[in-house]
Amino acid sequence: MIILGVDPGTICTGYGIIRYINNELIYIGSGIIMPPKVKQLPPRLEVIYDSLLDVIKKYRPDEFALETAFYGKNVQSTMKIGYARGVSMLAAIHGKLRISEYSPREIKKSVVGKGSSSKEQIQFMIKTLLGIDVTKMKLDETDALAVAVCHALQNTLVKPKGKSWKAFLDANPDRIIQ
Amino acid sequence: MIILGVDPGTICTGYGIIRYINNELIYIGSGIIMPPKVKQLPPRLEVIYDSLLDVIKKYRPDEFALETAFYGKNVQSTMKIGYARGVSMLAAIHGKLRISEYSPREIKKSVVGKGSSSKEQIQFMIKTLLGIDVTKMKLDETDALAVAVCHALQNTLVKPKGKSWKAFLDANPDRIIQ
Repeated sequence: MIILGVDPGTICTGYGIIRYINNELIYIGSGIIMPPKVKQLPPRLEVIYDSLLDVIKKYRPDEFALETAFYGKNVQSTMKIGYARGVSMLAAIHGKLRISEYSPREIKKSVVGKGSSSKEQIQFMIKTLLGIDVTKMKLDETDALAVAVCHALQNTLVKPKGKSWKAFLDANPDRIIQ
Repeated sequence: MIILGVDPGTICTGYGIIRYINNELIYIGSGIIMPPKVKQLPPRLEVIYDSLLDVIKKYRPDEFALETAFYGKNVQSTMKIGYARGVSMLAAIHGKLRISEYSPREIKKSVVGKGSSSKEQIQFMIKTLLGIDVTKMKLDETDALAVAVCHALQNTLVKPKGKSWKAFLDANPDRIIQ
């Protein structure tokens, strides 16, 4: 399964593509979309939409995962995140992808094991889990990879249904209350 | 000039089309887009985008006007307005239309002459200015017509450049401080 994770924003939209096969996470690609710094929002939204559709055409993902429910520092920035998320979802729909949404807390919990982790901790875990050099990556890029990783791991959580508790606990050691 | 005015929302998006020719406002059409009441947002955004593109294809407007900077009661509703506005702008871009944005205050000032007017006052002025029956229209629909009317009137304000003050004041009696 190829997963495209996206962290949308009108200034910078991060995207990350991973392959999840036989419980293994493989890095495929990632990047950032930086629309031109024009005052008007519509051309910036167009660049986000077009670039995401290009990414979908290039990597042909099976699933699309998005960070949800992150609110900006003020109403204006919240509205702008809304614009970017809206056109990102539309790109996914037009790319015929199913959309899954995860809250920042869910992503942190999945990737780092703690819902209150810092962005730097996420970056460190992305480096470890995917075995890639993240030093030159922007936080939006590693955040997008984290959304993709979260989606892969959440799907693992779903799979053990009906299987033994042991298999479930082996796969999810962080669920054990010490 | 045919103007499409849009008042976007994820629950209900209003649209209104007017023709503005020789200082006359003519009602062409209007309606509301009500996406299916599903919990997931992406299919609702798709309906808004597709329906607006259909409206653009049907009426072939020259201009696209949008209400801007309206913020919801809370961050969640603000974010949702952002989604709806984002995909509306994308529909305008894909319909090759120039986008103009007006604040609720600008719209009220243009249509009613007072920036703090109520939605009912706007509805009354839309009825008067366009000579239409608004009793069966939803507020989102008359609001969308108000955005279109605002755009037409704002363009009148631009035109008198270099013309006489008399022509300007005749066209804009509300600009006279009594």
